[in-house]
Amino acid sequence: MSQARLIALDWGSTRLRAFLLGASGEVLQTRQSDDGAATLKGAAQYAGALAALVGDWRADHPGIQLLACGMVGSQYGWREAPYVRCPADAVALSAQVLKLDECLSIIPGLVDDTAQPDVMRGEETQIVGALALHPELADDACLVLPGTHAKWARVEAGRVTGFATHMTGELFALLRQHSVLARLMPADGSSPPSPEAFLRGVDAAREGGGLAHQLFAVRTLGLFKQLAPEQLPDYLSGLLIGHEIASELNNATQRLALIGDPALCARYAQALARFDQPAPLLLDNTAPAGLWRLAQSMSLI
Amino acid sequence: MSQARLIALDWGSTRLRAFLLGASGEVLQTRQSDDGAATLKGAAQYAGALAALVGDWRADHPGIQLLACGMVGSQYGWREAPYVRCPADAVALSAQVLKLDECLSIIPGLVDDTAQPDVMRGEETQIVGALALHPELADDACLVLPGTHAKWARVEAGRVTGFATHMTGELFALLRQHSVLARLMPADGSSPPSPEAFLRGVDAAREGGGLAHQLFAVRTLGLFKQLAPEQLPDYLSGLLIGHEIASELNNATQRLALIGDPALCARYAQALARFDQPAPLLLDNTAPAGLWRLAQSMSLI
Repeated sequence: MSQARLIALDWGSTRLRAFLLGASGEVLQTRQSDDGAATLKGAAQYAGALAALVGDWRADHPGIQLLACGMVGSQYGWREAPYVRCPADAVALSAQVLKLDECLSIIPGLVDDTAQPDVMRGEETQIVGALALHPELADDACLVLPGTHAKWARVEAGRVTGFATHMTGELFALLRQHSVLARLMPADGSSPPSPEAFLRGVDAAREGGGLAHQLFAVRTLGLFKQLAPEQLPDYLSGLLIGHEIASELNNATQRLALIGDPALCARYAQALARFDQPAPLLLDNTAPAGLWRLAQSMSLI
Repeated sequence: MSQARLIALDWGSTRLRAFLLGASGEVLQTRQSDDGAATLKGAAQYAGALAALVGDWRADHPGIQLLACGMVGSQYGWREAPYVRCPADAVALSAQVLKLDECLSIIPGLVDDTAQPDVMRGEETQIVGALALHPELADDACLVLPGTHAKWARVEAGRVTGFATHMTGELFALLRQHSVLARLMPADGSSPPSPEAFLRGVDAAREGGGLAHQLFAVRTLGLFKQLAPEQLPDYLSGLLIGHEIASELNNATQRLALIGDPALCARYAQALARFDQPAPLLLDNTAPAGLWRLAQSMSLI
């Protein structure tokens, strides 16, 4: 373990992921816990969650630096880190890092305020990581980070020039659990996936029409037995992801990359194919690479 | 009370409204209870709710007919009434009435299955009522019934030729209560209305962009204090109603009429003005007039 150089923390709303990085930024160890920012309140709880997950790493490597990104830096987090305005790159982000103490810093978020303001926390670091791992994206690309609040970020000349959030994942969860559409569906998690139903939802979104209207078809297709109850969640997912893609493809003529959970990214890739898009680059969580790159930019390592 | 001729029941998911109608269909008395179809299960409960609300009317007028519309006829209702296919008029609806017993009948719903199937229960009767009260709408009009599941119905040559449901009201309630957008808002019902915020939401919808994206601005406009917490619900309402209107105006070059709760219809009228539409006709609940017209068509009266 002597070569450990940085503890990288991807600290989102629902999960804390820790990566022990070696002398070249390689991941030596990975750990995670459910101590997300949404479950913690006050500095003591954050410090406790951190000690519980990586206390031994810190003891084994006295003085090792910790660098965190994500909702840990929100106004409800450990302490509020600023938002850096677009266009921005790794240098701009590292210049506004929040130093919590001698050993722990938090990466700022990004704001795009060209129209209605839009914000991200955590994804800016994943984007920096994606560009570090794939420099060919830096010139002109669209980076898509699916999730509860999916982000579509434009990258030009190495900088994030703008981005848009889509509440796709949150809408899915709300409609799946609390809406009239849930009534005809089996209990959460009990249904096998239906790629056909998913693509049928994507195709409906491609044809156009208001989302609030098309959602009602989840009910009627079930009511008239054109879809089985266990297919309805996938149809709903296809509709929502399809609407997200339809509204973003106008802007995205650049090369596309998908970053995040492989199963979710695979869904987006399937949907993009339905929109006659070339196969996107698929990247797993690039937060460790981003934190490494930012630590270099800050001369932390 | 000797002139009472029909008990008209507008029996939706959340409320039972009863109207005692006179010899010309005029409303003699009105009552309502919270015994909506969503709260009742099984014939005994329905019969009990009915007896509690209008038992004395029936005793005072032995043999009086009762005619009901709405979710009372759904598959989770008292008994399932059929769906009549579009195009349909009062005659087509009355031909498929469900006779529950010698005194009580339920109006069927409507289905538009030209594309994804769409359904209504209760609104078909309000449409019949609107056309009875305003025959000038029968030739060519678009009838809009705002609500939990708003309906946009096209009427040509006296028949409903097609319609679309928008889950606008349900999305508002879900997002207002359960989403990340609710966090910055004051507790439900405590905020004074903000017409400015409502129209700002409508204007954002007019400018276009995906709904799932634009919704996130409810959070960021609060976060950056461009809207006060108590304005956020109205902005959300404007966004959702604006998106509904934007997606329907393509189809609706006809005369527009708004039917239902006056306060909600007034919001739609304000939003329509923002889309440069002429002032729509505003109608309060037309279910009693519709049930009277259908009772005539069935020769019940």
